[in-house]
Amino acid sequence: MTKNSKVNAAILIIGNEILSGRTQDTNTSSIALWLNSIGVKVNEVRVIPDIEVTIIDTVNHLRKINDYVFTTGGIGPTHDDITAQSISKAFKLKYEIHKEAFKILEAYYKVGEFNEGRQKMVWMPSNANLILNPTSGAPGFNVENVFCLPGVPSILKSMLGGLQNRIVGGKPILSQTISLRTVESEIAKSLANVQDNNKDLEIGSYPFFQAGKLGVSIVLRSEDQSKINKCSKEILDFINEKKIKIVDR
Amino acid sequence: MTKNSKVNAAILIIGNEILSGRTQDTNTSSIALWLNSIGVKVNEVRVIPDIEVTIIDTVNHLRKINDYVFTTGGIGPTHDDITAQSISKAFKLKYEIHKEAFKILEAYYKVGEFNEGRQKMVWMPSNANLILNPTSGAPGFNVENVFCLPGVPSILKSMLGGLQNRIVGGKPILSQTISLRTVESEIAKSLANVQDNNKDLEIGSYPFFQAGKLGVSIVLRSEDQSKINKCSKEILDFINEKKIKIVDR
Repeated sequence: MTKNSKVNAAILIIGNEILSGRTQDTNTSSIALWLNSIGVKVNEVRVIPDIEVTIIDTVNHLRKINDYVFTTGGIGPTHDDITAQSISKAFKLKYEIHKEAFKILEAYYKVGEFNEGRQKMVWMPSNANLILNPTSGAPGFNVENVFCLPGVPSILKSMLGGLQNRIVGGKPILSQTISLRTVESEIAKSLANVQDNNKDLEIGSYPFFQAGKLGVSIVLRSEDQSKINKCSKEILDFINEKKIKIVDR
Repeated sequence: MTKNSKVNAAILIIGNEILSGRTQDTNTSSIALWLNSIGVKVNEVRVIPDIEVTIIDTVNHLRKINDYVFTTGGIGPTHDDITAQSISKAFKLKYEIHKEAFKILEAYYKVGEFNEGRQKMVWMPSNANLILNPTSGAPGFNVENVFCLPGVPSILKSMLGGLQNRIVGGKPILSQTISLRTVESEIAKSLANVQDNNKDLEIGSYPFFQAGKLGVSIVLRSEDQSKINKCSKEILDFINEKKIKIVDR
């Protein structure tokens, strides 16, 4: 397996609702696909509970070993939203009213609707940089390399585009998928040989069931299209030899 | 937030396809819901790549601080399936042919179909305990408190039932959900007061959009039904007072 030594990230999902199984996380996939497109590889994802000391310790660990950390969840108005105060403590910064965020939400809500609950959402680590929220007003923020996003998937997705200029990625990570009407055991040996010939390219093999039939998707990933092309040709050679059918997927 | 001090678990998702965003993990939710039902609380989830040293280090860390660890992925027949050999190294056990697994797969496949690729799936840590697979033959396994399951969600789900007798849980974790036609900021203060009055019960607040309308689900979680009932009553009191509508969800 290859590791993109250039730019990497960790995703930290904060929320009891994911750990209990009640809510299915989809933010990992949204963030990871977006990061790949701008040349950042996700090295690790962690899901942790709404416990302050756990958030502080995990953020402080991850931010030192990754170029970027993206957190999701815990920046809303209720008592279980403790991400902003935890990040303040992680960076030993004051947790205080962010003047710019206050102005944004004051303008966003009708007169009289910017109540105490909503005002909690403008408390942030001192001098945090805002991440604008085109969907529901309340901004996220970053401190150094830690970017804090909300947990609601539609809102999170709408905020990623605005972040693009603040993330310095490497080369985009390219991929090619070849889907086959076969089972993994039929191609395992040939595929291992191809991996041996192409050590610095990531080759994944993923079985699937579709319309009642078994299949395997082979996924090639690299920053270098010519390496993908070379590897793809070697795979197509053994597929032709074995008379395995290529299918859409 | 409360922590179930009795029995806890970590889930370790092994697979580049999750980190790249290509595949949406659903196994976390399946395992967590099942564990809750038998009184085991998930403390942490990690997603890591198919890199041997990362698997070894992460398993050795998690198995020491959790009662149980459940891994998913990496036990198939292809070159990127390295969970079994990594677990062997983590426990300093031989990686060898498991005789019982060999017999199971020899009987499962037609004569001549138990090929080299498939035989890779019977290589396991020495003396591993098998986890039977009613869907596709190839068993998972456990060594001490580390249970290794496949990545394909339908197969994984079919294997959980057979594990029940090998996991010693605490009291089942009970939950109640109250869904409201409101926004979080309207109830944040009242809900924080209820949490203060009920410190050893977990109260989560989760906004949702349904049929174009905003709502909030309040989730109460505890091992003790009477604590849930007490807390639920306090919440219903302030909901009535504020004339907030309860909705199905």
